Amino acid sequence: MIVACSGGADSLALAAAAVHVAPGAVHGVVVDHGLQDGSGDRAAVAADQLRGLGAASAEVVAVEVGTAGGPEAAARTARHAALRAVSRDRGDAPVLLGHTLDDQAETVLLGLGRGSGARSLAGMAPWDPPWCRPLLGIRRATTRAACAALGLAVWDDPHNTDPRYTRARLRHEVLPLLDEVLGGGVAPALARTAAQLADDDAALSTLAAGRLELLVDADGSLDAVVLAGDPPAVRRRVLRAWLAAAGARELSDAHVRAVDSVVAQWRGQGVPPLPGELEVVRARGRLRVLEGPRHVSGAPARSAGPPPTR
Amino acid sequence: MIVACSGGADSLALAAAAVHVAPGAVHGVVVDHGLQDGSGDRAAVAADQLRGLGAASAEVVAVEVGTAGGPEAAARTARHAALRAVSRDRGDAPVLLGHTLDDQAETVLLGLGRGSGARSLAGMAPWDPPWCRPLLGIRRATTRAACAALGLAVWDDPHNTDPRYTRARLRHEVLPLLDEVLGGGVAPALARTAAQLADDDAALSTLAAGRLELLVDADGSLDAVVLAGDPPAVRRRVLRAWLAAAGARELSDAHVRAVDSVVAQWRGQGVPPLPGELEVVRARGRLRVLEGPRHVSGAPARSAGPPPTR
Repeated sequence: MIVACSGGADSLALAAAAVHVAPGAVHGVVVDHGLQDGSGDRAAVAADQLRGLGAASAEVVAVEVGTAGGPEAAARTARHAALRAVSRDRGDAPVLLGHTLDDQAETVLLGLGRGSGARSLAGMAPWDPPWCRPLLGIRRATTRAACAALGLAVWDDPHNTDPRYTRARLRHEVLPLLDEVLGGGVAPALARTAAQLADDDAALSTLAAGRLELLVDADGSLDAVVLAGDPPAVRRRVLRAWLAAAGARELSDAHVRAVDSVVAQWRGQGVPPLPGELEVVRARGRLRVLEGPRHVSGAPARSAGPPPTR
Repeated sequence: MIVACSGGADSLALAAAAVHVAPGAVHGVVVDHGLQDGSGDRAAVAADQLRGLGAASAEVVAVEVGTAGGPEAAARTARHAALRAVSRDRGDAPVLLGHTLDDQAETVLLGLGRGSGARSLAGMAPWDPPWCRPLLGIRRATTRAACAALGLAVWDDPHNTDPRYTRARLRHEVLPLLDEVLGGGVAPALARTAAQLADDDAALSTLAAGRLELLVDADGSLDAVVLAGDPPAVRRRVLRAWLAAAGARELSDAHVRAVDSVVAQWRGQGVPPLPGELEVVRARGRLRVLEGPRHVSGAPARSAGPPPTR
């Protein structure tokens, strides 16, 4: 297995635990983002610590961080790509990440701001290959205590306390206030909620996938009449999956609800265009997706022939 | 229809809208909790305002507030009982309440602290007879603007700004901070999330009710072997409904998970006692509930005969 380690308390404690559980089977990887002065030296120190803990091997992988999506997202994209490559090189070995219960609570709060229901509140999955997060039930204070007990010097990433980063403000301002106002226990409550909502979403998504298979024709059209009898939570998931299969991207809750209204409150109305210039029309009880500004009104978007070039 | 009015901006605006939509059909009710000096006078003023708006009738109902559950819960219990009585007297007429989108957002945040997943985050229902909440999509600022436009003097309950009340602190401290950190739009996002999670929970609860009917025998025992194949989100809802039917009260997520582990990870283990001295045992692939310290081990908790006196 691979352990991704930043040199921080969480991933050092994770590495120590992994070596304890599976001695001889742990390969440590330290990603050097090259964003701060001396990041290469710090990465080398962390790799040394991993070897000192008993990792079978440890390497530093330097990445180049782009700019897409802002600094946090760009660093994550580069890091994940590098770790995926190491995983592939090692026979799709799982990559263990040091996310704790506190990280999960922050992720749920971040999701609250999006307001997309269970999907945005379900947080991080314990196992989403190649990613594995064994510490999602462990508090950050525990990983720090573990490092202290093991005599490991931990590196505190200054980004974690930089108020320009949303996550840092959630950690140092919002969560302590919520905890005080609600009488404590907020981080574990958020983590429990994430686990339950992930299960809810999984059950409903599986159900919706089965319904979609049943209700979609070879030409890609969807039976709106039968779908109208499904509960709203299933209906909207069927529509989201159907629209995604038709090429729709970045669908908001409002988009899906607009399409759903043509299914469940049909009175001949139209649907505002979806992102990517996709248009949904209802005819003879079935929904079809028409593509782009060039489509001929009424023609099916997905014929049996080859798709139009874009 | 009945409109419950405190004299505050939300319920005054609601009353004005209700009279506009259904002139001649609105009966206003002002509950006098008798908790603050002059509450009777204030209630009389609100009743006058309702008549002035064009309500067919308006009455003040004085209630006696107990102490159970703290001051907020006790006042709500007394208020709801009084409003239910008025509803019954008027042929089960719906009772319109002035809860806004902002109240809904606060309710979701309160639910976060409980960590019970969709049930605690689903917030208030738009229609839960006799309660009807037509303003759940409307901002508090809008009801206040409506009252100003109508020249209505609104009463500001001092409890709404009293930092001893959790809801007041969520409103004046937590939500503004979250809004700032997450870049705005938090209250509508929380309200959207509540609506989606309510739909999710409804779909899964309906599914679970169907499964429970199928898997429970006349003696009240539950088929654990078949249930083990259901998704966790359905399984736990089936168990919660089954335990509630057997008399279990105030079940936490941890209680339900403990029973679920006997279904899904069966290796001969026991279940810690549930609240109310209920015990769950598994035998021959079925779960049974044994009651109280008096139960005879192995005997079914629910026989065909009359229940034991307590």
